[in-house]
Amino acid sequence: MLQSFRALAENYSVIFFDAYGVLKNFEGVIDGVVDVLAELKRNGKELFIVTNDSSRSPRKMGRLYQHPDLGELFPEDRVGSPGLLARDFQRSKVKTGNVAYLGKSDSAYYIESAGLTPIPLNHCDEDTQIGAVALLDDEGFDWQPDINRVINLLRSRTMPVVVANADKVYPTHGNEVAVAVGGIADLIESILGKQFVRFGKPDAYMFSYSFARASAITPGVRRKDILMVGDTLETDIRGGNKFGIDTVLTLSGNTAKENYQLLIDASGVIPDYVCESIAT
Amino acid sequence: MLQSFRALAENYSVIFFDAYGVLKNFEGVIDGVVDVLAELKRNGKELFIVTNDSSRSPRKMGRLYQHPDLGELFPEDRVGSPGLLARDFQRSKVKTGNVAYLGKSDSAYYIESAGLTPIPLNHCDEDTQIGAVALLDDEGFDWQPDINRVINLLRSRTMPVVVANADKVYPTHGNEVAVAVGGIADLIESILGKQFVRFGKPDAYMFSYSFARASAITPGVRRKDILMVGDTLETDIRGGNKFGIDTVLTLSGNTAKENYQLLIDASGVIPDYVCESIAT
Amino acid sequence: MLQSFRALAENYSVIFFDAYGVLKNFEGVIDGVVDVLAELKRNGKELFIVTNDSSRSPRKMGRLYQHPDLGELFPEDRVGSPGLLARDFQRSKVKTGNVAYLGKSDSAYYIESAGLTPIPLNHCDEDTQIGAVALLDDEGFDWQPDINRVINLLRSRTMPVVVANADKVYPTHGNEVAVAVGGIADLIESILGKQFVRFGKPDAYMFSYSFARASAITPGVRRKDILMVGDTLETDIRGGNKFGIDTVLTLSGNTAKENYQLLIDASGVIPDYVCESIAT
Amino acid sequence: MLQSFRALAENYSVIFFDAYGVLKNFEGVIDGVVDVLAELKRNGKELFIVTNDSSRSPRKMGRLYQHPDLGELFPEDRVGSPGLLARDFQRSKVKTGNVAYLGKSDSAYYIESAGLTPIPLNHCDEDTQIGAVALLDDEGFDWQPDINRVINLLRSRTMPVVVANADKVYPTHGNEVAVAVGGIADLIESILGKQFVRFGKPDAYMFSYSFARASAITPGVRRKDILMVGDTLETDIRGGNKFGIDTVLTLSGNTAKENYQLLIDASGVIPDYVCESIAT
Repeated sequence: MLQSFRALAENYSVIFFDAYGVLKNFEGVIDGVVDVLAELKRNGKELFIVTNDSSRSPRKMGRLYQHPDLGELFPEDRVGSPGLLARDFQRSKVKTGNVAYLGKSDSAYYIESAGLTPIPLNHCDEDTQIGAVALLDDEGFDWQPDINRVINLLRSRTMPVVVANADKVYPTHGNEVAVAVGGIADLIESILGKQFVRFGKPDAYMFSYSFARASAITPGVRRKDILMVGDTLETDIRGGNKFGIDTVLTLSGNTAKENYQLLIDASGVIPDYVCESIAT
Repeated sequence: MLQSFRALAENYSVIFFDAYGVLKNFEGVIDGVVDVLAELKRNGKELFIVTNDSSRSPRKMGRLYQHPDLGELFPEDRVGSPGLLARDFQRSKVKTGNVAYLGKSDSAYYIESAGLTPIPLNHCDEDTQIGAVALLDDEGFDWQPDINRVINLLRSRTMPVVVANADKVYPTHGNEVAVAVGGIADLIESILGKQFVRFGKPDAYMFSYSFARASAITPGVRRKDILMVGDTLETDIRGGNKFGIDTVLTLSGNTAKENYQLLIDASGVIPDYVCESIAT
Repeated sequence: MLQSFRALAENYSVIFFDAYGVLKNFEGVIDGVVDVLAELKRNGKELFIVTNDSSRSPRKMGRLYQHPDLGELFPEDRVGSPGLLARDFQRSKVKTGNVAYLGKSDSAYYIESAGLTPIPLNHCDEDTQIGAVALLDDEGFDWQPDINRVINLLRSRTMPVVVANADKVYPTHGNEVAVAVGGIADLIESILGKQFVRFGKPDAYMFSYSFARASAITPGVRRKDILMVGDTLETDIRGGNKFGIDTVLTLSGNTAKENYQLLIDASGVIPDYVCESIAT
Repeated sequence: MLQSFRALAENYSVIFFDAYGVLKNFEGVIDGVVDVLAELKRNGKELFIVTNDSSRSPRKMGRLYQHPDLGELFPEDRVGSPGLLARDFQRSKVKTGNVAYLGKSDSAYYIESAGLTPIPLNHCDEDTQIGAVALLDDEGFDWQPDINRVINLLRSRTMPVVVANADKVYPTHGNEVAVAVGGIADLIESILGKQFVRFGKPDAYMFSYSFARASAITPGVRRKDILMVGDTLETDIRGGNKFGIDTVLTLSGNTAKENYQLLIDASGVIPDYVCESIAT
């Protein structure tokens, strides 16, 4: 049942890759991945990252994948993240001023690039003028005191709240995970009885964003020319399916070889193909 | 605080209208609406319907709005519905064969137009080959026996399930409502522990679909040129906001003049503007 | 790992049985069950049914288990159902008058026995005086038109709503299921944004009700003297555990021998013991 | 519509009080409360606290209410908390050994009093033998690092998890709140896809526990002799109603005079009476 990724990729002109669990893991770039990507590029494939990670700018995320001859395999405009959608949202809905944020200063990039002023939540007091709240990506961030600040702020004022990553957890090392900003947003929403504006796979909007980028580079590209490669049924595969592009599940990350069929049956999320990894 | 819709519309070149509660209600097209639409068209505005109703084909839905001189105000290609996204999904994920559906034969249009064969759920037995299940829009449909059929079918087989309307209820007459297919899908999902593929506002995908249509007609159109007009905070306004277009809440349908500000504060969903109706 | 039920039962003086999947199935009383129950009674055990079924009166439900010599093995006062708690609730909160109900006339027993007047929902109009709504157990009931009536009634009036069975589905024949009143209540609650008063396992209240009955018959009985026997982790075992009595999972109904350990690990609901059935 | 609490109390022989918002607030015991309680005691009423607070032992919680002549108004056996139910659960389901807990050492009282050994989660490593996990009440506790520990622990091992307070937030000062252990438990459950064993109002089990205590002190007491006094519709009033005792909402805490009727209509939770406070 398992396919060879290299053989499969030949049928597509554009490939969307999830990053964590497909291209890299907690130890860094997965062995053999750079060579496969280089081969695809040489064969004329257009490669994009479609990640739920917004903890760094697209440029910093893309820079991880370097090839001796080809250089950066994912230049800035080839990396799509929920932070970019959050940036666009802020640009259109928060015309001017301050955005209070929960997260590290690295992820505040997505506020600054919208032409707004990021203010850490713990620097806000009752008198601070705030146009919106942003829950940014938070690897390694101590969010506990700020959660209570966000809750009390939003109990008394009505303003847009944007969440730059829908994932409930992020992987740390080995098989371990930590609570991510999507989980924190769930908690705050349930306490306030409100729903925030969230970006991230499986939302089809992530895919239409990257599709627009691909169309700009390859005019006339059709959905059937695109393959989404991901390790997670609930985000990569569900989202790619909904957007109408072909999907391949890799068993190099979140989903294990022993029980992938069980998980497909239990969730009802069916990838078009399954590969062990992209490098085998 | 309330704006004049006519004055507001002058600032936009493309206008997206929700249908029920904005253009029509249970008695038919709302008084004065046809005149306003005609005036907008004469002023060069491009008009689109972005509805969650998939109980009829786009053609039948658009045909309701006729002007003595201008004819059909919304030709088929100006009407976007979740059924169209469901059709595209089936086309890409169910390559051939039968789709079992819950709903009336009118809404099966969205299966046929994907090149597939719609089979009513109550005509399926254990031996019927089925490639997918579609929960279609269901006004006035007696779905009770079929719910149990869907549940038992999906307990034993893994296949894609698509839902062509995310709304929990639809309006009937006066202030009354009836359970819609989105509510039925919630119930089945919760029993099966699965999540189906759903289309409909507030999903940004609905807006990117209509945006693509608008771009084909008006090349170079930007999001800031578009106004979304809707009567429901949770679908029209939340979805338009997320997609980054301007939004106006009308008080001619779901949301009443007495408590719209309360509902905005409680939900945290903030329209850019509020109008009494489009015809006043 | 599997225990003998007979050997296990020796350690307890009071035994609570779930009915469906333990004592009976869609074909009637399970073979050998009457003999086991008779043996337990002869050994001085006090036997009770703790069921989520309220589609009939306790008397009718108990009458199913007849022994040639011992007669009815579960007299009326040995059968606990959510309907009895719903009856008590109505008695204390609806002092007088009409209760509109969704369900069959058989289950209206639980309204009449509270001294109130049951009125089928489809006999209610805008002028009917109603003190409460009861969603009763509904095997084989055509509830679709009444759901819309309940929704519209409760959108305009504030009154208590009581649900006499928390289960989402009930078993029909073979391995099949049908939507039960607990699932319907979920749907209505989600549409209205309200939570009703629900009775049924795993709610510890069901167990404290039967514990009070057992204490009346066997004064001084302690929780450690009681064994709960059930085929469903989520209701029988979770509820018994929470109430602090010992629990045994039987594999004669809802939970299959092939995957019970997987289900225990996935749910985190851990029975004290597991038996193939009570009759083996 | 507002009643006098003193006049109302005359009709009952047993009174259950919620603590926070009824008897005390962030500044301490509410003015006039001690006098009212003393008067009730002198009139022969039996008084109990039924709280969701498990951050201290019943003895410490009761000690707050001192009268110059009558001494402690709530001796240890008159204070019911979810921690006591959690203690009973551990006693019956964790026969021996260690219980890893999230919370302050004060709340570990509820583990020790079950005859088990509390071990703070941050002292557990992979080799620690653990029989259960307890999420205890956590005012002022820094739980962020421990949440990740709990999640990773429960991803690899199956064991009972008990939550000693179902509330999502607790009040801090003024109108502010902070995330409570019930909210944290929601987050962890949603990440793991499991449901823990939770105790606290509105669960009827809390009321049946205190009812058993009241019966021990006043043999033959009936439910209609008991009045539940609380400031929160969702816990105090919903729970008291479900248990079948009379309920009075006070407007001295969570629920404000301006909008209590709106909240009753929106939630469908209807108190039998409403009072401004118990001291007016």
